[in-house]
Amino acid sequence: MKNVDQNTITQAVLERMGEMPDARLKTIMTSLVHHLHDFARDVALSEEEWMQAIQFLTRTGQTCDDKRQEFILLSDVLGLSMLTVAMNNQKPAGCTEATVFGPFFVEDAPKVALGGDVAQGAPGKPCTVSGRIVGTQGQPVAHAQIEVWQADEEGFYDVQRPDLSASQARGSLQADGDGRFHFKTIVAEAYPIPTDGPVGDLLRATGRHPWRPAHLHFMIKAPGFETLTTHVFRNGDQYLESDAVFGVRESLIADWVEQPDGDTLLNFDFVLNESNA
Amino acid sequence: MKNVDQNTITQAVLERMGEMPDARLKTIMTSLVHHLHDFARDVALSEEEWMQAIQFLTRTGQTCDDKRQEFILLSDVLGLSMLTVAMNNQKPAGCTEATVFGPFFVEDAPKVALGGDVAQGAPGKPCTVSGRIVGTQGQPVAHAQIEVWQADEEGFYDVQRPDLSASQARGSLQADGDGRFHFKTIVAEAYPIPTDGPVGDLLRATGRHPWRPAHLHFMIKAPGFETLTTHVFRNGDQYLESDAVFGVRESLIADWVEQPDGDTLLNFDFVLNESNA
Repeated sequence: MKNVDQNTITQAVLERMGEMPDARLKTIMTSLVHHLHDFARDVALSEEEWMQAIQFLTRTGQTCDDKRQEFILLSDVLGLSMLTVAMNNQKPAGCTEATVFGPFFVEDAPKVALGGDVAQGAPGKPCTVSGRIVGTQGQPVAHAQIEVWQADEEGFYDVQRPDLSASQARGSLQADGDGRFHFKTIVAEAYPIPTDGPVGDLLRATGRHPWRPAHLHFMIKAPGFETLTTHVFRNGDQYLESDAVFGVRESLIADWVEQPDGDTLLNFDFVLNESNA
Repeated sequence: MKNVDQNTITQAVLERMGEMPDARLKTIMTSLVHHLHDFARDVALSEEEWMQAIQFLTRTGQTCDDKRQEFILLSDVLGLSMLTVAMNNQKPAGCTEATVFGPFFVEDAPKVALGGDVAQGAPGKPCTVSGRIVGTQGQPVAHAQIEVWQADEEGFYDVQRPDLSASQARGSLQADGDGRFHFKTIVAEAYPIPTDGPVGDLLRATGRHPWRPAHLHFMIKAPGFETLTTHVFRNGDQYLESDAVFGVRESLIADWVEQPDGDTLLNFDFVLNESNA
């Protein structure tokens, strides 16, 4: 097709798609092309703005490495991550709610025995976390695999510290036969998401703060249950109403309780949804 | 705001935007968030698909370097580039039409005298290009600056040849006092856009060919006139109806005329629009 104009081009792009064995991809690409073109038309995007967008996306990709995922961060601050999580995790009442995955998960975190220390020297006040993992009928989820990760008291995940050669404040545990777990770590504190890249530029340009309320990440897997990716948020945090990535659920807020001996205790139970398989 | 769901999150993201000195940015971001969220809801994007998209965008950014711009290529094959060009270049009848910029322009191309050789050793059949640059009243545009670039007969731009240390098949010329220009180069041939990156993966997955009809890129600048970014397309090319980037305009198709002496002649005149400034 020759001589497409700003309106006919949308159909021209859609008609160009040929034999697609993957019908789902066709659905996705058709909607994407419609929305992308409608966006450009709605705002009457200029060529200069188009080039700025190209450069922004390029910088976002080039800010990613094996320890940093700036496109996840971009998706997070635009609310796309939480939207996707919300659409895909509509569980029965009583199940623990899911929230955003975030950009700081690492595969193959160190294995930590029950009662062991996840902090591994990360700066922060000592904290002991305990809880139980059950199904929707209250039955224990024996030997569930628990991934936990968090920022330290200076607001950094281990992967944000170039001088660190070993993991800190992340670990992989296994619940006991009764679904119970406990481990030592540090108290979660509020922190700003990284602002030294393109996402930081976007937040500044749009008058937004980069802070996330204090939280502890969990990903819990067990055969016969849906994997749960969530956080526990710290009650009283000043950013609970304005999380930079829109991840806060009322049901995920818990008390970190200071003890006379200097330790802080967090107890949180998780309810997994049975999978359909 | 806590407990956003897949519908309320759109308003939550928009309300988070704070004081924005740039009203235009607010307009763009508001539309972008609406369309991005609507897209995800329309297709009920899964978490796995979201992660595939994150990885695709990351690879696209990381495929870019100082000589390759994979995000422009992505915009090109999705029709966004031609849409933006069409919206922003609605000129009076008689003006030469604009088309896509493409990913292979290079700043500071070698200066070439009128009549000089732009090819500089690029493989291809010899060709002489001539023409005249005028305004909408037919008045000559004296000393217009002409940037020209093209692929060689093997389908590569110089920047796609890692073994090349100097420019080939691109140059910067200046029209004479009567707006006339001529230079030597090679005959333009059809070629596939690069398919060894994420955009190639996308074309294969969507059943599309990567070919562009033979063309010669021009960017023409002169004080008092709108800059013209365009191509001249070679008449008879089999891909004129299915350009991978949707750039063909009927008015930009011209004959490359073979001569008995082995040279090929292309003559094309450009009509620039007067700028408002």
